[in-house]
Amino acid sequence: MADKKKVEAITAMEDDFAQWYTDVVKKAELVDYTSVKGCMVIRPDGYAIWELIQQELDRRFKETGVKNVYLPMFIPESLLQKEKDHVEGFAPEVAWVTYGGLQPLQERLCVRPTSETLFCDYYKNIIQSYRDLPQVCNQWCSVVRWEKETRPFLRSREFLWQEGHTAHATAEEAEARTVQMLNLYADFLEQVCAIPVVKGQKTEKEKFAGAVATYTVEALMHDGKALQSGTSHNFGDGFAKAFGIQFTGKDNKLEYVHQTSWGMTTRLIGAIIMVHGDNSGLVLPPRVAPTQVMIVPIRQQQEGVLEKAAEMKDMLKGFRVKVDDTDKSPGWKFSEQEMRGIPLRIEVGPKDIENGKCMLVRRDNGEKMEVSFDELETKVRETLDAMQKDMLERARERRDSQTYIAKNMDEFRKIFNEKSGFVKAMWCGDQACEDKIKEELSVTSRCMPFEQEQISDVCVCCGKPAKKMVYWGRAY
Amino acid sequence: MADKKKVEAITAMEDDFAQWYTDVVKKAELVDYTSVKGCMVIRPDGYAIWELIQQELDRRFKETGVKNVYLPMFIPESLLQKEKDHVEGFAPEVAWVTYGGLQPLQERLCVRPTSETLFCDYYKNIIQSYRDLPQVCNQWCSVVRWEKETRPFLRSREFLWQEGHTAHATAEEAEARTVQMLNLYADFLEQVCAIPVVKGQKTEKEKFAGAVATYTVEALMHDGKALQSGTSHNFGDGFAKAFGIQFTGKDNKLEYVHQTSWGMTTRLIGAIIMVHGDNSGLVLPPRVAPTQVMIVPIRQQQEGVLEKAAEMKDMLKGFRVKVDDTDKSPGWKFSEQEMRGIPLRIEVGPKDIENGKCMLVRRDNGEKMEVSFDELETKVRETLDAMQKDMLERARERRDSQTYIAKNMDEFRKIFNEKSGFVKAMWCGDQACEDKIKEELSVTSRCMPFEQEQISDVCVCCGKPAKKMVYWGRAY
Repeated sequence: MADKKKVEAITAMEDDFAQWYTDVVKKAELVDYTSVKGCMVIRPDGYAIWELIQQELDRRFKETGVKNVYLPMFIPESLLQKEKDHVEGFAPEVAWVTYGGLQPLQERLCVRPTSETLFCDYYKNIIQSYRDLPQVCNQWCSVVRWEKETRPFLRSREFLWQEGHTAHATAEEAEARTVQMLNLYADFLEQVCAIPVVKGQKTEKEKFAGAVATYTVEALMHDGKALQSGTSHNFGDGFAKAFGIQFTGKDNKLEYVHQTSWGMTTRLIGAIIMVHGDNSGLVLPPRVAPTQVMIVPIRQQQEGVLEKAAEMKDMLKGFRVKVDDTDKSPGWKFSEQEMRGIPLRIEVGPKDIENGKCMLVRRDNGEKMEVSFDELETKVRETLDAMQKDMLERARERRDSQTYIAKNMDEFRKIFNEKSGFVKAMWCGDQACEDKIKEELSVTSRCMPFEQEQISDVCVCCGKPAKKMVYWGRAY
Repeated sequence: MADKKKVEAITAMEDDFAQWYTDVVKKAELVDYTSVKGCMVIRPDGYAIWELIQQELDRRFKETGVKNVYLPMFIPESLLQKEKDHVEGFAPEVAWVTYGGLQPLQERLCVRPTSETLFCDYYKNIIQSYRDLPQVCNQWCSVVRWEKETRPFLRSREFLWQEGHTAHATAEEAEARTVQMLNLYADFLEQVCAIPVVKGQKTEKEKFAGAVATYTVEALMHDGKALQSGTSHNFGDGFAKAFGIQFTGKDNKLEYVHQTSWGMTTRLIGAIIMVHGDNSGLVLPPRVAPTQVMIVPIRQQQEGVLEKAAEMKDMLKGFRVKVDDTDKSPGWKFSEQEMRGIPLRIEVGPKDIENGKCMLVRRDNGEKMEVSFDELETKVRETLDAMQKDMLERARERRDSQTYIAKNMDEFRKIFNEKSGFVKAMWCGDQACEDKIKEELSVTSRCMPFEQEQISDVCVCCGKPAKKMVYWGRAY
């Protein structure tokens, strides 16, 4: 019964992309719903993806000198209010604790939606001299934002993330760290998650509450919608002034620190699903696949088959390998492995063993390869490497084919009325045009890309002289 | 200035153990206080210890089939109330969220003090048949308990932990898992943290809210106080009945699952400090030391010294090694390395380089060894191994020397009026005696050890026939 449910047909993504997504996260057993409205259970197969993301990101962070810490999950209301823009941005969507045990609290506490204020409170205590700089800290934790509409991984009231918070002696150093982390995110997304991204800066309207500049990596999902996949903020000395974080410089003068923050969340798992998935379920890039190879024995009751499967597992020690030796039929097992997005399947039966060969099947393109046992390890490595590369390439081609150019509002409207994707268009820099476009087409500015192009001289909306090329899109 | 503070003398533990502890956690830069009352910042040097604990525990968990998941941090009040004993135990000490954004919530949510109720809610959804069992899940997260008096690591309103929650088809399997995890904790404490423990069962009075049986590992701190260092609970089918978690057995009958939970927390860091620390600061067992070896160059401005230090670091790739090449004096550096509890110091100067030798200094006993460069790696390995073993042995000897026997209340009183430690004494099994002892001497039953001894035939308190030998102590 339980097996049957798993391999039931899922909604085709062409018919209803949202339903396809919901089917996949449920049937691949990544999440479950709970009695806590707007929150989810991340199940073992979902959490294992997050663990791989964590390990790899954390390793890359530490290579750049990042140290992990843990700060409280609560923020006293008075602390949240110290930076004006920041509190305006977050106060409407935080959860408030008003009772501790049986007693009402004297001051209510919000559950952190992000921890800039707490890091400021901490840095104020520990930073005195230029010798205490830079501070380059990160924490892995969960945060809460009281969203009205929620979807697994993409938008939930509680989600997991990492938040890096740094303090520097100079504006230049803070800006360099902001860009360094954005580049780290972009590289991670492309090399590990096989997700190509556009790097750029958010407009004033879209930037983070309290930031001087917000940089973003934007990815395009299978349905042509954009997903903000990581952000890096430069705060200048705004928070430092609000919180009084000063240090004595080498010249013995008192100065304010310059700060940054940067984060990635479990929403990344949603991006992986929506960039790579297909109508058979999940497709995981090998580098974030908790199980990379599933060995499916055929006629496993025959002597020697399970033994051979176990032997092959041993030969593949360098990979994350499992043998499906349950009593389900091979057909069920294939469907399950496909639904769960396991990159490589190896089929091995009595005939194969006789011939000294087995069959490799790639999850992404269904390609089959007959492989002799003595070259198994090499072929598995080659195939996983090729798949990782091909998945990025395919995602890049699709993204490019869904990226359009609009020189005026007619072209702009035509594109978004007929299809979905990124539109590159010029912008005068005036928020009124951004507002107008958003109102008419439900399209937002995704970013002003670092790689600018001169599509035309005038703003796509008002026709006044253009300042920047902007990526526009409908967003998750 | 900042350096000076760090190596200031700390309070001697003989003079004021509590103040010694506070000095060490602050001056070794493990924690910092915050504007959030009762909560703390775990600083990089503190968090790095937790990361090592996590890695090693997580590896051991996974070897026994544990899978990690993540459940919401909020529990709706109605869900918390489903199991009667459980809600009574926890309701007085939880934090309540009553507002989401600007709206009052229809039902208030508590911030999880522990997640039995959430796991029950989850297991109810995903368990249908015996094929879905066992479920052996764990989560790493933070929990909140609204404590009145708090101390860094030992008792804070928010702390980090892991909580394992399992569901099984039979009572036997649940009991076996409960004991398996307790043994895993005991082995971890002894082999990794160098902390010897007493394994046993909690009395009815001291067991976990909602449990049938609670097992515990109890350790003794330097000051003779006990610290509960890990617990494992068998719930029987009590929660399953309260939440309706049933499965269809092989015989097609509907049955309730049997459940367990088990946890370890950041309080463990407090135990490591209080078992191993000395009047020069922290002493970390090599296996949980974020930095295992600190190379301190002497006369580092002389040509070749820093180069040699870097070369030695390369030779010690298999260890966690740093070179202190700051411009502080060697004396300061020694004090800092001692305060931070780094197990091994290597001193190397121009003379040493000439002689092809350097000096190893053990943090735990101050022992110095002259070592030639070509045997450096071997000697470092041997010394760290020896130190790990010696620290456990020393802790065991101290624990044993602070463990007493009492046959009657006079002896019992005399011991606790004069000293501190474990007292082994017989008990009739009646809670009245436990209550009386607690009231008179502020001593609680720590556990009924698995290894029972027949000290006398009668209860130490009431003189009636004794049922169990109990470890008693003053506890953190």
